[in-house]
Amino acid sequence: MGGPVPLCSPPASPVRGTVPLALPHICPTPAVSKKLVNSVPGCADDALAGLVACNPAIQLLQGHQVALRSDLENIRGRVALLSGGGSGHEPAHAGYIGKGMLTGVVAGAVFTSPAVGSILAAIRAVTQAGSAGTLLIVKNYTGDRLNFGLALEQARAEGADVQMVVVGDDSAFTAQKKAGRRGLCGTVLIHKVAGALAEAGASLEKVVHRVKAAAGAMGTLGVSLSPCSVPGSGPTFQLAQDELELGLGIHGEAGVRRMKMVPADEIVKTMLDHMSSSSNASRVALEPGASVVLVVNNLGGLSFLELGVVAGAAVHCLEDRGVRVARALVGTFMTALEMAGVSLTLLLADDDLLGLIDAETTAVAWPNLARVPVTGRSRVLAAPEEGPKVEEPIPAGAPASQRVQLVLERVCSTLLGLQEELNELDRAAGDGDCGSTHARAARAIQEWLNSTPLPARPSQLLSTLARLLLEKMGGSSGALYGLFLTAAAQPLQSRSDPAAWAAAMEAGIEAMQRYGGAAPGDRTMLDSLCAAAEELRALQAPGADLLPVLAKAVQSAEAAAESTKNMEAGAGRASYISSARLELPDPGAVAAAAVLRAVLEGLQSQSG
Amino acid sequence: MGGPVPLCSPPASPVRGTVPLALPHICPTPAVSKKLVNSVPGCADDALAGLVACNPAIQLLQGHQVALRSDLENIRGRVALLSGGGSGHEPAHAGYIGKGMLTGVVAGAVFTSPAVGSILAAIRAVTQAGSAGTLLIVKNYTGDRLNFGLALEQARAEGADVQMVVVGDDSAFTAQKKAGRRGLCGTVLIHKVAGALAEAGASLEKVVHRVKAAAGAMGTLGVSLSPCSVPGSGPTFQLAQDELELGLGIHGEAGVRRMKMVPADEIVKTMLDHMSSSSNASRVALEPGASVVLVVNNLGGLSFLELGVVAGAAVHCLEDRGVRVARALVGTFMTALEMAGVSLTLLLADDDLLGLIDAETTAVAWPNLARVPVTGRSRVLAAPEEGPKVEEPIPAGAPASQRVQLVLERVCSTLLGLQEELNELDRAAGDGDCGSTHARAARAIQEWLNSTPLPARPSQLLSTLARLLLEKMGGSSGALYGLFLTAAAQPLQSRSDPAAWAAAMEAGIEAMQRYGGAAPGDRTMLDSLCAAAEELRALQAPGADLLPVLAKAVQSAEAAAESTKNMEAGAGRASYISSARLELPDPGAVAAAAVLRAVLEGLQSQSG
Repeated sequence: MGGPVPLCSPPASPVRGTVPLALPHICPTPAVSKKLVNSVPGCADDALAGLVACNPAIQLLQGHQVALRSDLENIRGRVALLSGGGSGHEPAHAGYIGKGMLTGVVAGAVFTSPAVGSILAAIRAVTQAGSAGTLLIVKNYTGDRLNFGLALEQARAEGADVQMVVVGDDSAFTAQKKAGRRGLCGTVLIHKVAGALAEAGASLEKVVHRVKAAAGAMGTLGVSLSPCSVPGSGPTFQLAQDELELGLGIHGEAGVRRMKMVPADEIVKTMLDHMSSSSNASRVALEPGASVVLVVNNLGGLSFLELGVVAGAAVHCLEDRGVRVARALVGTFMTALEMAGVSLTLLLADDDLLGLIDAETTAVAWPNLARVPVTGRSRVLAAPEEGPKVEEPIPAGAPASQRVQLVLERVCSTLLGLQEELNELDRAAGDGDCGSTHARAARAIQEWLNSTPLPARPSQLLSTLARLLLEKMGGSSGALYGLFLTAAAQPLQSRSDPAAWAAAMEAGIEAMQRYGGAAPGDRTMLDSLCAAAEELRALQAPGADLLPVLAKAVQSAEAAAESTKNMEAGAGRASYISSARLELPDPGAVAAAAVLRAVLEGLQSQSG
Repeated sequence: MGGPVPLCSPPASPVRGTVPLALPHICPTPAVSKKLVNSVPGCADDALAGLVACNPAIQLLQGHQVALRSDLENIRGRVALLSGGGSGHEPAHAGYIGKGMLTGVVAGAVFTSPAVGSILAAIRAVTQAGSAGTLLIVKNYTGDRLNFGLALEQARAEGADVQMVVVGDDSAFTAQKKAGRRGLCGTVLIHKVAGALAEAGASLEKVVHRVKAAAGAMGTLGVSLSPCSVPGSGPTFQLAQDELELGLGIHGEAGVRRMKMVPADEIVKTMLDHMSSSSNASRVALEPGASVVLVVNNLGGLSFLELGVVAGAAVHCLEDRGVRVARALVGTFMTALEMAGVSLTLLLADDDLLGLIDAETTAVAWPNLARVPVTGRSRVLAAPEEGPKVEEPIPAGAPASQRVQLVLERVCSTLLGLQEELNELDRAAGDGDCGSTHARAARAIQEWLNSTPLPARPSQLLSTLARLLLEKMGGSSGALYGLFLTAAAQPLQSRSDPAAWAAAMEAGIEAMQRYGGAAPGDRTMLDSLCAAAEELRALQAPGADLLPVLAKAVQSAEAAAESTKNMEAGAGRASYISSARLELPDPGAVAAAAVLRAVLEGLQSQSG
């Protein structure tokens, strides 16, 4: 049987004179790129076997690089669909095996056409399963055309009813190429169209006819930020740090044009212009009013974040031209190993064709596509109403605004005075900005005190302070104080007696522990706060006197802050630095104790 | 509202002293990596908007980085599920929005927790849509815990019924971490389990209970061949050409261990050992007999070929330990931008949990999973029977074996004699091996002639020669000659008169043109063959005399071969070299003409 035929020249022999070996900003080419494989010669076999191992709906054909539906009995009386080609394009093609798509695939070595003997074995297997003829869906590459063609001729000589459709969807070359357009990601749409027809019981002749029409109404164009590396080799070409390659195939070959990096919107516009230009012999006829299926295909190594950016740009760019995007597939469909690029495929599709795209399939790599048009619907939902403003009465015993104002002013001046000391403490174990962060909070509170009347309800006061700190303080401290105050506001909604303030402290600490992940003993502000809360519990006894209890709580908090100097950091940034004892107290704990003292002194100054 | 909280330290400031700036084999770090985006600050917003633009089943919430199901009316009376986190993990989480999975997601900047205000807006939107409570599914990272926690507290203060589950599936750290296990790819399984329960109408309390149980029976571990780059920055760490990193998170941070490259099987074994080791505090209890859902997740930039290799290794390694793989998901589920790595997730699953994994969903990034176990079925199908051997009678006029033998010997010696001349011609326009390829074919035929009796039927003779050349000649020439002979054999099945041989020539040429893509005038062997075929048509006239016609055909072929020196290459490798006239004849054309002359002379020597 025929040996495998390579689809493209070996990447190791670049054409002399085209690319200097070391441009500025080009990383020296590694001789062999790293790959997560067992062996270079076995990697394609292992990859196919791996996909079969994970997918109970497909099986390997003994002795061949062929994967077939496990339920071959279900193709009796239906047209069988076989595809395949070199490996390195995964999830193509084995991912498209299933009811409503392919019956089977034949895989070659990486970027190398499959063996004729394996293709013939696949045809025999589906023929012997009682299929009503077999269609070979082949990407237009010389090696694939030859080897699938050979197998077809041999199968016909055995009396099998076999047809072949060669898919060429490449829109890169503006002048007609003798070899025709290359077969790229659009082939996946052909698998889908043919699969839906075959599943519905169409004859081989009808499938061929419809598939040829669809294949003639497609275009694909790729761009890439990187080459790829065939296992056992180095990168297939080189690109500078500010360059991208336009119009690539899927075998690591360079494209038709090299561009300087520009924003994604511009790249997409350039691609769509190129694909639809009237001077491009391989164009898609993209007239206003046309309806298209869009495929945004990861060529392998592009981040899905970038894929999403490109997908959005493509939809908007098409809609700006008056083209209706009927369906949009975004994902990894036909790769060139780990190439960090993306291809766009456009298939002109009427409702009839859309019905075939929408038809059910069990193929694992076909996405869960919504069966409604992408264009012509609202993509934005109105923001929800704000939460209900519960206008509760001011609880008895709520502190007067002026008293609160004085306490808060004292807290702010205390924190501003501690700025340098806190920064210094933080430099020993963190990033040295603890004082600055607290000072930022103090200035924000001062500004607010000077601009807005204070809320009369304590719960509203704490909620407002929470939002202020979340917005202005920043960092984890801002989030933690915001959380503390938000939770502390709850027990104060209906009461404002000393017991309610003690409960508020507990609720704040509980939330901080739950979401922040730290506990007392971890060398954080929780050490001070918990020590204080312990004492404040005394407020829950009937007739408890606020100021003496608070004074004891402050002393306890200060002692706890001091004692953090003997603790190992168990949370926060300091926990990543060193497990040695840090010998200075935690700045967050010191700040929290200082805030408590300021509150005490603020209250004392008014009661005196 | 709270500003976003970064999840990890900025990658631009590596800890001093840990990684020298230039190790041997490490590529110098580019200051800023290339990205296909419009702007660094806007890239996360653009990516989310892009996915929404392509998916009519989801909408953006005005003014927020929130995507929600378009059919919010369908969650009335059901538990709403919200998730999210920093961007850079696509398709997580927006890809998992849909019936049977998430109600919505909230996205932050790249690797940065979402804004509290956006999380709160999402909770309000689903609450106002009439959901029966809201569950926040949060990956365990400090920033996410804090910001989702804050929004939860604020929403509760507004009277909303909200719960939060923090998922920590990381199995990297063998010692218990204060901050708990990080949330990784296993979160996607939690989306699925919670989604199936919510869709089935379970109460918030029940969803929380079941989800916590599932989250406690999971483990995830990643390896990577590369770091990733946050847009606007360079790579987050450095790896040498022969190293890989084990136990990574999904924010570009380095892992717990650096290893030398070993085969994929060994890497997978190391991973599974680490994940299940009894000395690992964050292990999965992987006892023999356990049933697991396996997720083989591309961390972003790994080729799907490698992913398949790893997937196969994981299934086999688990089965070798007596673990039953119930379901296996292979694909891109939770990424760290373009990191070239893979994570394995194991979820211990009973039938009940499998039912939830199998439940229907419309989420676009959830794969089309077969609902049958992976372990315990045959992965190999017996090879099909060989094609029927049609034992047709030897047609009248078939040449005697001895005559054929002499002709073939002459062809072989001719080709061997031409080896250097053909190589020389090929060096001008190709890779200089045309003579060697033909000589290889000649030697293969000689060997065959000496070892096996010749088939008596001409069609069988050509088919056998076709297989011989496909197997031994190699290259495109081997495939093309194989194709020619396979097709040429057909007209000779029932007849063997001179007209049938002319028809065989035509059939061979037709197949070669159809599958090879070249035509006369393209500077290939077809030029010689077509010129000869033109003359051989005379054999179809009654009473035509073979030898004189063949002699004329040979002359015509030789003239055509000679004339190729004025042609531009239109196909084959030469077509990529230069469009200038090549001034030497095409070696393939010369060889074909020489073969025809050898046949003529072989026949003449016997008739004389």
